[in-house]
Amino acid sequence: MPEDTAGSGMYICIKALEDGVQVIGMTRGKDTRLHHTEKLDAGEVMVAEFTENTAAMKIRGRAQVFTSFAQLESGLEG
Amino acid sequence: MPEDTAGSGMYICIKALEDGVQVIGMTRGKDTRLHHTEKLDAGEVMVAEFTENTAAMKIRGRAQVFTSFAQLESGLEG
Amino acid sequence: MPEDTAGSGMYICIKALEDGVQVIGMTRGKDTRLHHTEKLDAGEVMVAEFTENTAAMKIRGRAQVFTSFAQLESGLEG
Amino acid sequence: MPEDTAGSGMYICIKALEDGVQVIGMTRGKDTRLHHTEKLDAGEVMVAEFTENTAAMKIRGRAQVFTSFAQLESGLEG
Amino acid sequence: MPEDTAGSGMYICIKALEDGVQVIGMTRGKDTRLHHTEKLDAGEVMVAEFTENTAAMKIRGRAQVFTSFAQLESGLEG
Amino acid sequence: MPEDTAGSGMYICIKALEDGVQVIGMTRGKDTRLHHTEKLDAGEVMVAEFTENTAAMKIRGRAQVFTSFAQLESGLEG
Amino acid sequence: MPEDTAGSGMYICIKALEDGVQVIGMTRGKDTRLHHTEKLDAGEVMVAEFTENTAAMKIRGRAQVFTSFAQLESGLEG
Amino acid sequence: MPEDTAGSGMYICIKALEDGVQVIGMTRGKDTRLHHTEKLDAGEVMVAEFTENTAAMKIRGRAQVFTSFAQLESGLEG
Amino acid sequence: MPEDTAGSGMYICIKALEDGVQVIGMTRGKDTRLHHTEKLDAGEVMVAEFTENTAAMKIRGRAQVFTSFAQLESGLEG
Amino acid sequence: MPEDTAGSGMYICIKALEDGVQVIGMTRGKDTRLHHTEKLDAGEVMVAEFTENTAAMKIRGRAQVFTSFAQLESGLEG
Amino acid sequence: MPEDTAGSGMYICIKALEDGVQVIGMTRGKDTRLHHTEKLDAGEVMVAEFTENTAAMKIRGRAQVFTSFAQLESGLEG
Amino acid sequence: MPEDTAGSGMYICIKALEDGVQVIGMTRGKDTRLHHTEKLDAGEVMVAEFTENTAAMKIRGRAQVFTSFAQLESGLEG
Repeated sequence: MPEDTAGSGMYICIKALEDGVQVIGMTRGKDTRLHHTEKLDAGEVMVAEFTENTAAMKIRGRAQVFTSFAQLESGLEG
Repeated sequence: MPEDTAGSGMYICIKALEDGVQVIGMTRGKDTRLHHTEKLDAGEVMVAEFTENTAAMKIRGRAQVFTSFAQLESGLEG
Repeated sequence: MPEDTAGSGMYICIKALEDGVQVIGMTRGKDTRLHHTEKLDAGEVMVAEFTENTAAMKIRGRAQVFTSFAQLESGLEG
Repeated sequence: MPEDTAGSGMYICIKALEDGVQVIGMTRGKDTRLHHTEKLDAGEVMVAEFTENTAAMKIRGRAQVFTSFAQLESGLEG
Repeated sequence: MPEDTAGSGMYICIKALEDGVQVIGMTRGKDTRLHHTEKLDAGEVMVAEFTENTAAMKIRGRAQVFTSFAQLESGLEG
Repeated sequence: MPEDTAGSGMYICIKALEDGVQVIGMTRGKDTRLHHTEKLDAGEVMVAEFTENTAAMKIRGRAQVFTSFAQLESGLEG
Repeated sequence: MPEDTAGSGMYICIKALEDGVQVIGMTRGKDTRLHHTEKLDAGEVMVAEFTENTAAMKIRGRAQVFTSFAQLESGLEG
Repeated sequence: MPEDTAGSGMYICIKALEDGVQVIGMTRGKDTRLHHTEKLDAGEVMVAEFTENTAAMKIRGRAQVFTSFAQLESGLEG
Repeated sequence: MPEDTAGSGMYICIKALEDGVQVIGMTRGKDTRLHHTEKLDAGEVMVAEFTENTAAMKIRGRAQVFTSFAQLESGLEG
Repeated sequence: MPEDTAGSGMYICIKALEDGVQVIGMTRGKDTRLHHTEKLDAGEVMVAEFTENTAAMKIRGRAQVFTSFAQLESGLEG
Repeated sequence: MPEDTAGSGMYICIKALEDGVQVIGMTRGKDTRLHHTEKLDAGEVMVAEFTENTAAMKIRGRAQVFTSFAQLESGLEG
Repeated sequence: MPEDTAGSGMYICIKALEDGVQVIGMTRGKDTRLHHTEKLDAGEVMVAEFTENTAAMKIRGRAQVFTSFAQLESGLEG
């Protein structure tokens, strides 16, 4: 696991640990709503930038989530 | 857990530890009011930028909260 | 606890340790007055940027306060 | 393995560990859809930037994925 | 206590250790005079930026003061 | 092997470990297609920037690949 | 005491160790003269930026002085 | 050997280990073709920038190649 | 004593160790001449920026001198 | 030998270890040709920037060559 | 002695170790000639920036010379 | 000797170890020729920037040469 990684790094990295993981892009701007849902099957990896249109992302289902300052697991472990 | 992570990193990362965690976006500008509430179920992860419209966020319910300089847990532990 | 975290990080992170913690935004400009008071219940977390309108914040009540260069506890410990 | 690598590094590096690994570029903008799928055979390496047109990438199949803050393996290990 | 914290960090953080701590903003410009006095009760925390109007701050009374390069205690310890 | 190398470093370095290694430049823009294939014989080294025209590169055949955040080997090891 | 603190940090921090410590702002420009004298009583802390008007500061009396590259004590110790 | 060297460093350094090492500059732009071949005899060192005209370089023959993130040897070792 | 202090830090810090220490500002521009002499008594501290008008400073008498890259003592020790 | 030296440092440093070492500047631009040859006698040191006119340099003869990321010796050691 | 000091630091610091040390400013531009000689007596310290007019400085006589990357002594030690 | 010194530091520092050391400035531009020779006597120190007019410097005679990434000795040691 890398220690000491630096970078502006305004993107995240997600690895699905089960089928049907959802990476949900949410709109930037006055109105915060879902604008895209990407489904990942187990083992699929997605890297996704924050963009002019995407100010937030939601991850549903069991997945590893990597950001420049955090590494965590989404989903229920039980 | 990463040590030594650097980056402008003006976004935060939240993992809900129970159903119904709320991530509440609050307006930038003269008037500070709620403009969006996103609900997270247990295990869901959200990454969210500060934006032109969002100058503050509030997290309600049990969740892990990661920022570029802090890692903490919201909610009551008891 | 992270060591060595770097970033421009002009926002702070507050976790209420009791009900009724107040995060009070104070105006930027010639006139320094309160412009918003946000109340946090025990366990709630708030992240808040300094903005065009907010040049200072005051935290009342028992809370953990995280900045890019300090981690402290507000409120009376007794 | 390098420790302490720093850089803006807005590109990723993928090594296919089996035939038919897919690196799928997804559009930037209001409409998030696939715009290109590149297939990699076992052992092939691809480096790919985020671009004006690509705001996200999806990796399908067994591969090593390197970003400036994460090193992981896509695909199912079983 | 954090070591190795980096950031432009042109704000300070104050925790009052007794009632009536004063955080006094002093004007920028040719004329240096007090333009605002904020009173803090014991336990209250204030974060305050240097601004277009505030080029100096004075802290009176027992308090912890955190800057990006110093951590000290104001007030008399006896 | 260098540790702790930092730099914007938007180029990669490839050393062919067998004859016929291919470094394939792929176009930037709406249309992602191959625009150049460079063949390397065993022992040849190539350094190649991402450019206005090249947003991705593919390496086929046994080679060492160096980026600012990863060092890996392309090709099949068997 | 913090080690490794980084920042542009063009302000200093002074803690008076006796009554009547003087922090004297001196003008920027062709003419170097005193433009303001701030008096600090024992225990008072002052943070002060270099500004458009202040290019130098003088500290008289017993005080701790913190800059981004030095920590020293003014005044006579005897 | 230097550890911890940092810099934008968009140039490389080559030392020929035999006569006739070729450093081949390849064009930037839509058309990737060789635009210059420099021959180095054993022991000769060349430092070469990426330029407006050169987006890639190829090294043929036994040589040491230094970049800001890699140190390797071109050519066949046998 | 701080180690590892970083910053653009184009100011210096002087502590007089005897009465009558002189901090002499010298003009920037074609003509290098003294434009201001500030006298410090024993124990007095001065922080002084390089400015549009001051390109050099001379310290006469026993003093501690701190810059971002050096800590030394002026004056004769005997 | 310095460790940990950082800087944009787009110049190199050469020390001739025998008479007649050649530092050959090569043109930037479409046409890569020699534009200047500087001869160094044993012991002479040259520091040379990459410039608007010089995009590459070649060192012939026994010399020490220092760049911001490499330290090597040109010439034949036998 | 500070280790690890970083900064753009385009000024130097000189401490005379004998009377009559000369700090000689040399002109920037096509014509390199002396434009100012400052004499330092034993113990005097001078800090001097490179300026629009000064592109080089010469130190004559016994002195300590500090730059952001070197600490040395001028003059003859015998 | 300083370790870990960082800075853009586009100047060098030379200490003559014998009389008659020459620091030779060479022109920037299409035509590389000597434009100034400065002679240093034993013990004299010179700091010299790369400038609009000087793109290279040559040091003849026994001297210590310091750059931001190298420390070496010119001249013949015998």
